[in-house]
Amino acid sequence: MLVGIGPGSVDHMTQRARDAIAESDVVIGYVTYIKLVADLIEGKEIIRKSMTEELDRAVSALEAARQGKKVALISSGDAGVYGMAGPTYEVLFQAGWTPDDAVQVEIIPGASALNSCAALVGAPLTHDFCAISLSDLLTPWPTIARRLDAVALADFVVALYNPKSGRRTRQIVEAQRLFLRHRRADTPVAIVKSGYRRRQNIVFTTLDQMAEADIGMLSTVLIGNSNTFIRHGLMVTPRGYANKYDMADGGTTREGEKAGRSLSTGLLGWLQQVKLEHAEGADVAELARRHRLPQDYIQSVLDEPDELPETEVATEEDAA
Amino acid sequence: MLVGIGPGSVDHMTQRARDAIAESDVVIGYVTYIKLVADLIEGKEIIRKSMTEELDRAVSALEAARQGKKVALISSGDAGVYGMAGPTYEVLFQAGWTPDDAVQVEIIPGASALNSCAALVGAPLTHDFCAISLSDLLTPWPTIARRLDAVALADFVVALYNPKSGRRTRQIVEAQRLFLRHRRADTPVAIVKSGYRRRQNIVFTTLDQMAEADIGMLSTVLIGNSNTFIRHGLMVTPRGYANKYDMADGGTTREGEKAGRSLSTGLLGWLQQVKLEHAEGADVAELARRHRLPQDYIQSVLDEPDELPETEVATEEDAA
Repeated sequence: MLVGIGPGSVDHMTQRARDAIAESDVVIGYVTYIKLVADLIEGKEIIRKSMTEELDRAVSALEAARQGKKVALISSGDAGVYGMAGPTYEVLFQAGWTPDDAVQVEIIPGASALNSCAALVGAPLTHDFCAISLSDLLTPWPTIARRLDAVALADFVVALYNPKSGRRTRQIVEAQRLFLRHRRADTPVAIVKSGYRRRQNIVFTTLDQMAEADIGMLSTVLIGNSNTFIRHGLMVTPRGYANKYDMADGGTTREGEKAGRSLSTGLLGWLQQVKLEHAEGADVAELARRHRLPQDYIQSVLDEPDELPETEVATEEDAA
Repeated sequence: MLVGIGPGSVDHMTQRARDAIAESDVVIGYVTYIKLVADLIEGKEIIRKSMTEELDRAVSALEAARQGKKVALISSGDAGVYGMAGPTYEVLFQAGWTPDDAVQVEIIPGASALNSCAALVGAPLTHDFCAISLSDLLTPWPTIARRLDAVALADFVVALYNPKSGRRTRQIVEAQRLFLRHRRADTPVAIVKSGYRRRQNIVFTTLDQMAEADIGMLSTVLIGNSNTFIRHGLMVTPRGYANKYDMADGGTTREGEKAGRSLSTGLLGWLQQVKLEHAEGADVAELARRHRLPQDYIQSVLDEPDELPETEVATEEDAA
């Protein structure tokens, strides 16, 4: 059982995670995570591993399971997000394991650091977001740098995992440099250290000050998008209601917009607009510039036959 | 209390989420979510809202709280991820609320759809990932399209939220079109419908077939990165151990790499390499092409003074 224990406070573990630990004969994990669940593991066989021994943890888990023991392999946050789920399957496949094996695998999801940290600072992840690890222990720097560059430009909210360690101090400086090419210097940033743990510490700063902040191995860095703001000590990314509703006017729908329907600048409205601009003489290169999208994408939507008017399908509708 | 109830099965709720509902006088939520927690809300005042009434839910919550009632405003997954946390703060700020107000706010994190769906299909989120909502009810299509384009190119694993509804059927086709410009046609895709609920359904497909799959309002679509594979019905994104360790050889460290240290192609190794190539005659434009990074970024790292050799700091080290 690959158990995501959430941020570390037992209150924020799921029932299934608690049950999995209770059912297990052996608990395996990084020493710090073992400490976080100390109250739940009395009388069990405990295998403590250091930070860099992920593959060893998976190998130990497989060995114990092959002996018929029930094993809980614990990860902080979610076992699937930079957690033990990946290395465990890599080790299992290498060992010739298949799902028909006597050893059965269950992954137990939990709130990852980005979920917990977001809950503590306000509502920063209300719109599209990314997680990027700044650790270059397994990932070449150009891959990380290309990702930072791409999402800074495309205006995602970004959670940086493993932002800094004793040895890795310059990655956060480079991340800042890449972001400042596309984002305002005063873009809000939250740095959450040990969220929901005893030494919890939250700092709000801005993109241009971020690299000077106190950041360590137990920190997650949240960088807002171009609409994110900090008010009264809360970091909030608007979902976009103001695109459709007049918030100051009791939430009445703006002219040209309909509740429960796509925005007038949604896909179909936008397609009509692009075709109109094209008919009025704008060529594909000009349209690509105006709409900041690739030329061949613009060309391909122009090549599609005209969309029928929005049909009145009576069906479950999506959020907002 | 803004309560993230997780995927929907009570087993996967946190203790704090259960307690929050138990403590509350009033429970407010979308009808489907109210059904998911039916066992926990007997005897409470229930306010059921339809899908498009997020702002109404927040207003009702504030009204009830102002009357001195304890309110649980429930979201499926995580309240902070496309959930009620954002609209609630927007409504609170609009109403002049501040954190000193008698009405206190707590956000209770939970596993979001991407966490739950990932746990059900294997280990797809082991490397950098993004969440993008395809709903254009509040977000203009060009914003969504630019984000799809950026992360397809930068090789993120991507979770698509709100991929399709009765009325919105073409967004997933456009997402596919944008991805196919950068990703292989056989890129693995998992479609998880009603994860951890009674009608759970998981389908594996590929990027070029994705738009034809059965996708609805209760589906999350996970698109792998260029290394993601499906084996024995499990979708796995390798973390990158193979960059450093010889997996077939019992996990011995590859030549030139050190356990617990940055890769030879990590930031400092890469900086040395770029400077060397520059010294050997490659100009900035050529280096930008070779490393697929912006010219001005390459220029700025070349302008930095030389890094000292990696110091031997005895400190907590990061994963892998």
